[in-house]
Amino acid sequence: MQALDAALSTSKNPPVDTRSLADCTEACVACELACLACADACLEEPDILSLKRCIRLDLACADICAATARVLSRRIDDAKLLRWLVEACARACATCGAECHEHADHHEHCRVCAEACRLCAERCGRVLRELPDTYGETHPPVNGDSQLR
Amino acid sequence: MQALDAALSTSKNPPVDTRSLADCTEACVACELACLACADACLEEPDILSLKRCIRLDLACADICAATARVLSRRIDDAKLLRWLVEACARACATCGAECHEHADHHEHCRVCAEACRLCAERCGRVLRELPDTYGETHPPVNGDSQLR
Amino acid sequence: MQALDAALSTSKNPPVDTRSLADCTEACVACELACLACADACLEEPDILSLKRCIRLDLACADICAATARVLSRRIDDAKLLRWLVEACARACATCGAECHEHADHHEHCRVCAEACRLCAERCGRVLRELPDTYGETHPPVNGDSQLR
Amino acid sequence: MQALDAALSTSKNPPVDTRSLADCTEACVACELACLACADACLEEPDILSLKRCIRLDLACADICAATARVLSRRIDDAKLLRWLVEACARACATCGAECHEHADHHEHCRVCAEACRLCAERCGRVLRELPDTYGETHPPVNGDSQLR
Repeated sequence: MQALDAALSTSKNPPVDTRSLADCTEACVACELACLACADACLEEPDILSLKRCIRLDLACADICAATARVLSRRIDDAKLLRWLVEACARACATCGAECHEHADHHEHCRVCAEACRLCAERCGRVLRELPDTYGETHPPVNGDSQLR
Repeated sequence: MQALDAALSTSKNPPVDTRSLADCTEACVACELACLACADACLEEPDILSLKRCIRLDLACADICAATARVLSRRIDDAKLLRWLVEACARACATCGAECHEHADHHEHCRVCAEACRLCAERCGRVLRELPDTYGETHPPVNGDSQLR
Repeated sequence: MQALDAALSTSKNPPVDTRSLADCTEACVACELACLACADACLEEPDILSLKRCIRLDLACADICAATARVLSRRIDDAKLLRWLVEACARACATCGAECHEHADHHEHCRVCAEACRLCAERCGRVLRELPDTYGETHPPVNGDSQLR
Repeated sequence: MQALDAALSTSKNPPVDTRSLADCTEACVACELACLACADACLEEPDILSLKRCIRLDLACADICAATARVLSRRIDDAKLLRWLVEACARACATCGAECHEHADHHEHCRVCAEACRLCAERCGRVLRELPDTYGETHPPVNGDSQLR
């Protein structure tokens, strides 16, 4: 993934650390693809009826990871927006990962997906810890009055 | 949009009202397209240098609206996940709408986009009010123990 | 969908007719949502085993429709690129629609989806007929030498 | 990208080679992110006015690469659909890469993006060479009569 590394080499959303953002973005796209592959593989399993929740969470998690990766690749100065989105992504990964973990002993694709979800949730957590605190801030920033600098 | 109305005619995520979900999903895709059109039109404006934040927020808002519409079209039983995602969407719309509003007098595409953002934020707000309260709930649901039923 | 109508009110890719592009974009997002809703509903059907191909085509069609709607909302001067993408979208809709049609008697969501696919394929066809002929043209346009003007 | 490698480890669309599909999918997501980062960086450049086509092609290429990666991650039995989509992706990469190449001497992000586009176009080309010939085939496959097996 040399091209990906190069694409991710500069921080887009200070004061979040360059490495944290790049790692999170990379984990998001890896998780998106693992979720889509898992959902597709679930359709072929004999116990498909017990995998319906897994399929739905896979698809939802893939959508949220994809959007998060895209947004993190831009300079966005609204810390509260970033916080909510990355929280949603971490939650989607935690929920989907917990479901996949239930099936990990029987299905390799669920094991792989649970691991991708765990890694993505962890990296989202790192970004969240580096984002400025936004508690008590309730309105969108007025033009030119960004919270990130 | 008869096909869209039909596609949206059943509630996917009880106990949120059928109409609220369909209205929100519809507003999300309308907002996505308005944002993408606004970003594209901004590139042709003579005051492009003052529209850079607008372009970035348009693109971020489009990505988040798209993911929200997709997730709302499925049965997802994790209320906390839905809450964070719809909060992120409402915030993206509020922030992007506020920025577009600043340029609405000079650019019709910004006026249209601000209005689409306002409507989407409002409909996200309605979904949020109907979602069950999740305060105090800190872990993803254990398999088979959904919060929505 | 007033906001959507406003967002779609100007042609982005001449010489394609304004109305054709807006109609196609609208049909793409309606088809995306109908496909996602159909895939989700298929998971609840007792004959889920005979709906696996339907679910996969629904998801593929939704992804391609979404990308097509996004690309059509921008000024893109490479007619050959537009042609291939809209061809792929028309094909996805035709294939998915044919599969859904097989199940339309038993499942309302398949009937709705088949109709959304048919409409989208038809509108893609109209855009394709209006795009300039690109036969014999084999290389991407050199910078500043666009094929659409 | 260990998680990504694991997610991509089995061929989804025979008779295309496992490695070809995984390589193409990986190149698609790398190209998507490089394009989004390039578009964002272009907005900060002093010669932004000469980069408008670059921004638009970046965004279109990102959308098409994203959809292609998603579709390739599923078992899809319609070779003609895959062919059109991968052709569109290769074309988007070739067009966007050619534009970025024009600016590669002045902007590192354009150089990185041109390289990601080149790699993705090359890998799309490999998938296209492995897909079964579909010339002369003009209708979507009848249910149960797939072209890939």
